[in-house]
Amino acid sequence: MAEPIQFYFDFSSPYGYIASQLIDAVGAKHGRAIVWRPILLGAIFKITGMQPLTEIPIKGEYMKRDFARSARLHGIPFRMPDPFPFSGVAANRAFYWLEASDPVKAHDLANALYRAAFARNQEIGSVDGVIQIATQLGVDADAIGAGLQSAEVKDRTRAANDAAVAAGIFGSPTFVVDGEPFWGADRLDQVEKWLVSGGW
Amino acid sequence: MAEPIQFYFDFSSPYGYIASQLIDAVGAKHGRAIVWRPILLGAIFKITGMQPLTEIPIKGEYMKRDFARSARLHGIPFRMPDPFPFSGVAANRAFYWLEASDPVKAHDLANALYRAAFARNQEIGSVDGVIQIATQLGVDADAIGAGLQSAEVKDRTRAANDAAVAAGIFGSPTFVVDGEPFWGADRLDQVEKWLVSGGW
Repeated sequence: MAEPIQFYFDFSSPYGYIASQLIDAVGAKHGRAIVWRPILLGAIFKITGMQPLTEIPIKGEYMKRDFARSARLHGIPFRMPDPFPFSGVAANRAFYWLEASDPVKAHDLANALYRAAFARNQEIGSVDGVIQIATQLGVDADAIGAGLQSAEVKDRTRAANDAAVAAGIFGSPTFVVDGEPFWGADRLDQVEKWLVSGGW
Repeated sequence: MAEPIQFYFDFSSPYGYIASQLIDAVGAKHGRAIVWRPILLGAIFKITGMQPLTEIPIKGEYMKRDFARSARLHGIPFRMPDPFPFSGVAANRAFYWLEASDPVKAHDLANALYRAAFARNQEIGSVDGVIQIATQLGVDADAIGAGLQSAEVKDRTRAANDAAVAAGIFGSPTFVVDGEPFWGADRLDQVEKWLVSGGW
């Protein structure tokens, strides 16, 4: 079996959302599993000195236009969340808590959280917002509530972010195919070429 | 006649170089002229707070890998210039000086400067470096030497940059098609789709 594709993303990243709606089909087409790895760009920005795209003068206005235009091109529903950016901490902890017992449902939760935030402008930046989405997938509210408070889950979430940084991840989305990193939802065409050719 | 495509680029931009080797063919294919507009990202970064890609921790290493990989994908010769980044001031002034009398030759000069810098690691950051390339195209060394010192040419170069900023340009390359901006050499596929469809 070929190596899975690593898919790193931040829940507050519009391009991460766009990629999330496309990556599973890419994996299925090329016989690769996708390992979803939520990251926290806020923590990574402290290392790189980068800042949220929409807060950069001039560039910010362009990016908002490009988010919507890129989503339209792929036929993906998109609304700019308000407020934006929002914290992905609760969403990341929920993912890593659930993944330990049920990786498939953790993937479904990530998908549901992204769609809630970027297709319906539903709030996923808080613990309550995340629990609401999770319970709609049949996750027990008390269990996830306890999970989100667990020191072990907090440590696991932090460790996942540290591992991403150690792997050279600085932005969302990033795909790693057989050790080769590709940054940006607009690199999926190159990801597919790499999957077919093994490189160039 | 359809509107020309505006092509904004910084001479020290690797993706600007890659785009420069592709954009004329895109214009020819779709019956559009290309208006080449050198900009100075250093001045624009003072407004946006951005910094050269290669100087950003973690991201910088990825970008160097992506420059070379993107060039290989398109079959474009590429060597990382050393030193990098370098000043595009002399190159911009040479372009705007020459464009006033001979726009076609100014385009050829821009192409020659880019290839010197990114295919042959030839120094184009200085007045002498730029004059050397220009004279190979038959430009008179004394004339361009005087042009590069001219207050009028300096003003024209600055005005071109101010006009780019006023048009919302923050990065290199940026293409503007019928008023629609596309940032990044990797947006040329969308530029082509836009040219065919008129938008989506």
